[in-house]
Parts: sequence; structure tokens; C-alpha cells
Amino acid sequence: MRVYFDNAATTAASEGVARIVEKTMREDYGNPSSKHIMGVEAERYLREASEIIASTLKCKEKEILFTSGGTESNNTALIGCALANQRAGKHIITTGIEHASVYEPLLFLESLGFEITALPVDETGHVKLDELKKSLRPDTILVSTMMVNNEIGAIEPVEEMSKIIKGYNSGILYHVDAIQAYGKLRIYPKRLGIDMLSVSGHKIHGPKGIGFLYIDEKVKIKPIMYGGGQQRGLRSGTINVPGIAGLGQAAKEAYDNFEERIAYVTSIKDMLIDGASQMDGVTVSSLKGNAGAPHIVSISVEGVKSEVLLHALEDKGICVSSGSACSTHHPGISGTLKGIGLRESLLDSTIRVSLCELNTKEEAEYFLAAMEELIPQLRRFTRK
Amino acid sequence: MRVYFDNAATTAASEGVARIVEKTMREDYGNPSSKHIMGVEAERYLREASEIIASTLKCKEKEILFTSGGTESNNTALIGCALANQRAGKHIITTGIEHASVYEPLLFLESLGFEITALPVDETGHVKLDELKKSLRPDTILVSTMMVNNEIGAIEPVEEMSKIIKGYNSGILYHVDAIQAYGKLRIYPKRLGIDMLSVSGHKIHGPKGIGFLYIDEKVKIKPIMYGGGQQRGLRSGTINVPGIAGLGQAAKEAYDNFEERIAYVTSIKDMLIDGASQMDGVTVSSLKGNAGAPHIVSISVEGVKSEVLLHALEDKGICVSSGSACSTHHPGISGTLKGIGLRESLLDSTIRVSLCELNTKEEAEYFLAAMEELIPQLRRFTRK
Repeated sequence: MRVYFDNAATTAASEGVARIVEKTMREDYGNPSSKHIMGVEAERYLREASEIIASTLKCKEKEILFTSGGTESNNTALIGCALANQRAGKHIITTGIEHASVYEPLLFLESLGFEITALPVDETGHVKLDELKKSLRPDTILVSTMMVNNEIGAIEPVEEMSKIIKGYNSGILYHVDAIQAYGKLRIYPKRLGIDMLSVSGHKIHGPKGIGFLYIDEKVKIKPIMYGGGQQRGLRSGTINVPGIAGLGQAAKEAYDNFEERIAYVTSIKDMLIDGASQMDGVTVSSLKGNAGAPHIVSISVEGVKSEVLLHALEDKGICVSSGSACSTHHPGISGTLKGIGLRESLLDSTIRVSLCELNTKEEAEYFLAAMEELIPQLRRFTRK
Repeated sequence: MRVYFDNAATTAASEGVARIVEKTMREDYGNPSSKHIMGVEAERYLREASEIIASTLKCKEKEILFTSGGTESNNTALIGCALANQRAGKHIITTGIEHASVYEPLLFLESLGFEITALPVDETGHVKLDELKKSLRPDTILVSTMMVNNEIGAIEPVEEMSKIIKGYNSGILYHVDAIQAYGKLRIYPKRLGIDMLSVSGHKIHGPKGIGFLYIDEKVKIKPIMYGGGQQRGLRSGTINVPGIAGLGQAAKEAYDNFEERIAYVTSIKDMLIDGASQMDGVTVSSLKGNAGAPHIVSISVEGVKSEVLLHALEDKGICVSSGSACSTHHPGISGTLKGIGLRESLLDSTIRVSLCELNTKEEAEYFLAAMEELIPQLRRFTRK
């Protein structure tokens, strides 16, 4: 039995996605920049994908910028915005539990003279709103937080944060890394007060090497790559039609039957949380039901190194991820597990189980049984 | 009859490429960063593609950096190198006929205080070597030229240029945009004296959204994107396994039966050059045989606007590209057609025909017959 429980790392492309990718690679392979019929046909795929995605976000098509993935989306949002708006100030606020594709561009900006404040989170991984209030300054130009934490699945209070930010100064831009949130939550940036939103294709059964950045039309931003001027000069390079068409298809599938699909994945998550929580010396850092993302369960096993557990599970055909301890030296950027105050002894003893709608309750039962069997065995091998 | 003569814009993915892309999207879809078996399997595709590509260039695997395409390869080479080496000087040399994905990053660097010299070319599009000699300075850190011009197919004297550059100062880095050259010429960077080489996947029947930058292991370079530290920190972002596997497959196919394939494409090119040259008021700016790239023919038709000709050909099912007049205001960056001294009246009357091995002699005959028929008709509609 193979059980793929690493869907927050990447997912299998859906059949529909694979089909449209092949069609646009083999048949309708034109370059949208070409003026002839093949170019026009290719342009149509681009437009259709933009329409689908814009409709899922209730925004305008021209507010969708296609990128090579989540990392480029985050880099464009942060570097592009900081450089375009630095006359208004050089202070940027983020959180201590962001993904490397957010904090690394911010550390780069710090090397250019920007100042970064990283907010702490509480023991469930939620940003402390009073800390956000205290950190806002007249020279703050940008706030960047994630929507769903990639390690424990905490859902951040994005709408509340936006209200605090915009209440302080409506000119401050708010960027949200939604790479683990898109397709799992309904996200309407205009209603939530989000100016920029990063999304990755391969986390939602779309292709790798493609993603998008929602950019509110009023946001001033510079490109990070220069060339032929595609996408209104904001992202040069031949339009990746197969990637974009595949991403459009994946977005459509993610929001078709949304409630039913999410309820199903959540029910598997809850089984895992209930089952793991009952085990001896096991700590679960993810919340049940709608209080957390539907697809991520963080499980810490006292006395068992995560790498050892990962490979023991792998021997049973189960693929999970090890929780990552963050490696920056920046004060404030703690990483998620440290950030929520997980005991030191559990930091290297944490695995992440991440789900999608292809997983089943049988798989969850199989995983829980494997854990019950393995944990006592593995603990015997661990030095006290 | 549909004739696709726009292969320099983009190509159809090959069957083998589509097959490996689908396999890595649907079955072996793991993330190489994952430590379990799915990650290990994904890593293998990455390694195999690196091996294939390195063998075509006779370089080391670790000298191949995968990017999202030619534009990112050029941006990384130019911006990444200029920023990493600016202590040695801020002077960069290029040519007046580069693609926008080279000259636009250079104009960005100019805005940061770098100085750009653009070399002129002769009437066949070849860089004037004596001008290169004169332009080298003690503060020159980087030279960037293309290998095959995208509009007329001129093959630049890359080896001679490298000798001049390295003879002046072996510390100057030489970047070559080989986006129209890879798969059409045999390219051995170490033998030719090239430090960095940009390649795009979709120009050689590979996927869109993928490319690579060859970087000699001794070159100092900074990333232009920050995040999870993939590819030794030089290009963060989830590894695009389907794109890379597809690119590896395309590279393999491009250099299997290389001589035979290139001879075949060259023979179609020569038919087109011979046929078009005999037409009244028609100028061909591409060279026959091995004197030019095998796949590009630039045809200027006196008294007929290229857009009009393009759409008239389209009505007959033939897809070609219009020659582009360059739009920069930088002194020296002339664009190709101006750069070779094409008469003003022909600048907007030029089409580019570009071939691949899927084209046939019948298609070439059909195209020439269409031109013979259309040109007199279209000239009648043109204002004198």
C-alpha cells in the first residue's frame, strides 16, 4: 500500500490538468506573442485561465500576474513592491513563521537598507494582533503574512490584520502568501483587504513551474525580470501557456464542489488528529475542523527523531514530511515550531501529514495503526 | 494546408517530451526536496536531465542551473553577475542586436549605475571584432552577445570574441545568449571560452516555462530570486521536475542524429533563400548553408507591409512572424534590421520564416508559390 500524505509539499496533477497541458504542448502550442492564428489560439487559453482564476477570487482578470510559481510570486510581491514604494518608507512587517520564500527576499531587502519587523505568534500559530498594532510606524510601507501556515495549518486572522493595517494607514500594502490556502479556503482579496496574494499551481493538482500573483490594480510594483514586455511589462518571458492552462483547470477543479471536497478532507484530518492525540507522548499542533486548514496535521512524537519516523513510515509505504526547524539568524524569524513554543525536545521529533481529496479514511486508519506499532519500537532505539 | 513556419517563436513539444511530462505530473510527481521515496524518484529525473544536458555541452552537471526559461536565464546571468562582480568595475559590453531579454536587464543595470557599450554589426549581422577590441576597458566586467541572431539567423563569431575578451583580461566574464543556437549548433562552452550560456526549452520542442543557464563553476554570481535554497541557493523554488525532465528529453532529441537533422533543415532553408531571392523586389538577409543558422530566413518585400503579408499568408494557412523594429532609445541598441543597415523602407516590410525538422520541402514550395501569387496582389493595395 502506498499512502501519499505529503500534499503540502506537492500534489499529483489531475487528469484534467494533464490533458490540457498535453493539448497545449502538442496541438495548440503557439506563442501568444505571435500575430497569426496559432498565437491567437494560444492567447485564448491564457484568457480562459485568467477568467477562471479571477472568478475564484472575485477580482479582475488584469489583476492576475502569472509567474513561475509561489517563490517567484512572493519575490515579485516583496522586492517589486519595496523597490517601487521605498520613497514612502523602508519599514516592512512580517511574522516569525513565514516560509523561506517570504523571509529570504525580506532578508535580501534588509541588505539593501530596509528594516524588517517579525511578529510573534501564539501557541496555536496565530499572529498576535496587539503586536501588529504596536509594530506599525509612519515609515511602514508593506506587511506580509501567510494565510495558512505550511507546517501546522494555522489559519491567520487576515481580515482582522488588514483592518488594523489599513486603519493605521490605508497606504500600507498588505501581501498575503496564500500558497497553502488557495483551493482550501474561499479567498476574496477585495473583501478581505488584501493587496497582493501569492499562489502556486502544484499545491492544487496543477503543474509545477507555474503560479500567480494577484495584484490589486492600484498597487505600484516593479518587475524583478526584464525582457520582451509580456504581461504588461510586469513579467517578461514567453507566456507559459501549458502551465497557465493547467493552472486554470486546477483552479476550476479546486473550487468546483468546494464545500463537499473540503468537508471530506477535513473529516480525514479530524480522524488523524483524534487518533494521534490519544497516543502516549504524542502532541498534535493542528486544530480540528474549520479552526485549522483542512489538509495539514503536525504531529510531534516524544523520544523519536522525525527522520527516523519518516523512514520507518516509508517502509510501510507512507510518505510524510519532517517538520523543519528554521535556520535563520534573524531575531524574530523563529520558524513555526519554535514560534508556537513547542518544547525543545519535540522540535526534531515532528512530522507533517498533509492531505488531499485523493486520500481515504482507510489510509488514515492504516497510518494510525502504523504509528501505534512503530512508536514504541522506535523509542527503544532512542538514547535517553 | 497548415504550415507552421514560426519555430523561432516556439515549437510543438515532441511526443517523447509530452510523455515524460505527463509521467512526472501524474505518476512520479514527488518534490525532490521531500526525503521519502517519492522525493528520491523525482530527484532521479532531475539528475538524468542534468546528465543529458551536461553531456551535450561537455560540462559538469553542477554547472547547469535550471530556470523558468530563456528570459530568466538571461536576467540571472546579467543581473546576478553584475551585482556579484561590481567591485571589479561597472562596464558591460553587448551588441546592438540583442533580444529584449538581454538589453532590458542591461538597461535596468544602467539605471543602477552600470555603463553599457553596444557594439555595431556589419551588413550580415556579425559583430565587428575591431569594435569589440576598442570597447574593452579596465573596468569592463562582463560581455554579453548572442550566438545566433533571432531575426536573421546570423551566427556570431563567439570563439573569436572570447579570445579577444580573455586576451585583454581573463577576468572579464563572457555570457552568450544561445536561445536560438542550442540544438542547432554544437556548443562546447569550455572550448569556446564561454562562461555563461542561456538556453530555453520551448525553442527545441521542450516544454514552455523551463530553461537553463550554464554557469562555469568558477563564476561568481548572485541569485535574482530568494527562498528555500534549491539548486545550491542560486534558484529557489520547488524544482519543476516535469519541465526539467521534458527539457532533458528535448536536449537528447536535439542532439541525436544531429548532423542529419540539421542538414535536412538547412536544405529547406536554402530552398527558401534561393526561391525568395529570385523574386522581384525581395531582399533576403539570411545566409545559405552553414554560414547561417539552419532555421531562420529573413525576407523583406519592397512595397508590402509585413503585417499585411503575414495575414495574407495566414489566409493560406501559413504561419510566419513579422520582423520586429526595435523600440529602445538607447544609443547603439539598434535592433537587428536597422543594425545590418536594411533600407528604411524595408524595416516594416520584413517577415521571418523559421523552420524545424517537422517542416517539409512541399511546405517550402507551397510557401514560395503563395509569395509569388500574393506579392503582386498586395503591392497593388499599397500607397505609393
